[in-house]
Amino acid sequence: MSSQGPRGGNRRGRGGGPSRGHSKGRPPGDHERSRRQRAGLGGDRVEGRQAVRELLLAGTRPVREVVIATGQNQTGALAQVVELAAELRVPVKEVARTKFESMAVTEAPQGVIARAAPLTEHDLEDLARPPDGRPPFLLVLDGVTDPGNVGAALRTAECAGVTGAVLGRHRSAHITPTAAKAAAGAIEHVPMAVVPGIPNALARLAELGVWTVGLDLTSPTSVYEISVAEEAVALVVGSEGRGLSRLARQRCDVVATIPLSGHLSSLNAAAAVAIGCFEVARHRAHSPSD
Amino acid sequence: MSSQGPRGGNRRGRGGGPSRGHSKGRPPGDHERSRRQRAGLGGDRVEGRQAVRELLLAGTRPVREVVIATGQNQTGALAQVVELAAELRVPVKEVARTKFESMAVTEAPQGVIARAAPLTEHDLEDLARPPDGRPPFLLVLDGVTDPGNVGAALRTAECAGVTGAVLGRHRSAHITPTAAKAAAGAIEHVPMAVVPGIPNALARLAELGVWTVGLDLTSPTSVYEISVAEEAVALVVGSEGRGLSRLARQRCDVVATIPLSGHLSSLNAAAAVAIGCFEVARHRAHSPSD
Repeated sequence: MSSQGPRGGNRRGRGGGPSRGHSKGRPPGDHERSRRQRAGLGGDRVEGRQAVRELLLAGTRPVREVVIATGQNQTGALAQVVELAAELRVPVKEVARTKFESMAVTEAPQGVIARAAPLTEHDLEDLARPPDGRPPFLLVLDGVTDPGNVGAALRTAECAGVTGAVLGRHRSAHITPTAAKAAAGAIEHVPMAVVPGIPNALARLAELGVWTVGLDLTSPTSVYEISVAEEAVALVVGSEGRGLSRLARQRCDVVATIPLSGHLSSLNAAAAVAIGCFEVARHRAHSPSD
Repeated sequence: MSSQGPRGGNRRGRGGGPSRGHSKGRPPGDHERSRRQRAGLGGDRVEGRQAVRELLLAGTRPVREVVIATGQNQTGALAQVVELAAELRVPVKEVARTKFESMAVTEAPQGVIARAAPLTEHDLEDLARPPDGRPPFLLVLDGVTDPGNVGAALRTAECAGVTGAVLGRHRSAHITPTAAKAAAGAIEHVPMAVVPGIPNALARLAELGVWTVGLDLTSPTSVYEISVAEEAVALVVGSEGRGLSRLARQRCDVVATIPLSGHLSSLNAAAAVAIGCFEVARHRAHSPSD
């Protein structure tokens, strides 16, 4: 395995300078946070057995209500949902199947819906310094907006040990019910920041000492040839159609490709996240701290 | 990277014995093949720009008709579809948006539908010996039935260089329009076999000299620690809920896990396929033939 990449690149100062300040004109008070929750991250409606079970298990935000469709065998994940809700004194409402279907907004809600407090939005600075002292391993989604892809990416990233995710700000909530269901509980465990622009966020991460590694099919460097810093790294994945934006690509410390061996010319964004995140995880598992 | 796994295992004879025969009671004539096409593999309806473009580009089966919704900007993939159809003398029918929506069966057909001859079903024996002499790299889906997952798995597998796929026989067609769309053209390039039972197919693959490597979260062996034979290997992936079936697990030469580092206890099946297939691809790219 050759070793090249970030260490030889234009690495910027680690956590130096006035880096812990918040973005200008945005005081980090509770009022502001509450406004940002409403505008940005979403996640207040969770559908699907696995996603609702993880919501209750994680206990990271208040759950207001669980709604289940009548006539289901309460076994497996559904039984756990009912049990956990009782333990946590979350009201469980059983409704007829037709009413349930009219309430659900995802395609396959699997007979269970929960309403919860919206997800808490985090600052980039928080993500760059996880509270437990672990070196950050971040996922940055640059233009991935399909809710199913966002959710699937977060799920796989969580399984790879990602400690935080960065999403670009758009008009609508990011963690829609479809994203929450596809995430299968990952949204309860992965702190997320929503930023006005990905290129600026990459520059800020560099200031905070986080290596930024972009995935792009046009790079001559293979993702397998990169020895990523195990202590602080952000993997940047673009949308399926357009890849990384030009500016995001320029801001990355390293840009690497996933070598394709077939006839097709592109991977689905969630698949690229899976391969990229587990490649970083493999490196982190195998490289000793230095 | 340690090297263990299949090479030390109970490898069976390569291609020995009366292996090229067909299953009993199933003569391989055209009539039989045609019946099996109708019953089994599907793929005769393809929706979505990328999937239809690849169908026309690949030229591996007759395309009867392309239907596009009126009022679309004919740029990018759609422009290529129209151009390719003209070159191939495939009739292109423009229909009003409302009529188009009533014809489409997938969620987001992206304004284009094609009708084609069904996919040709292959025998395991064919898959074990790719016509171009490449060592086979197969994907076996054990109980993965969700069409979106099947399609996504095939797409990623094709990008990893998979030379064939094995699916279990069920009542309905396997390559539904939803699977075809998610596969984004992979179904044109990956020969597929449909088998009555996965465990028997694994035994047959072993007879044909193909290593079978199962992915299972309960294995103590990491997928990163396995040096898979680059000349003939089949990766076996189970469904998300149940994993590999007991019998399939027993029949695999090696069972390995994808180590998870987060709170969640399972990966989506398509993500497991992505990580597993690209791990095999990485090994194949790095290990010289022996």
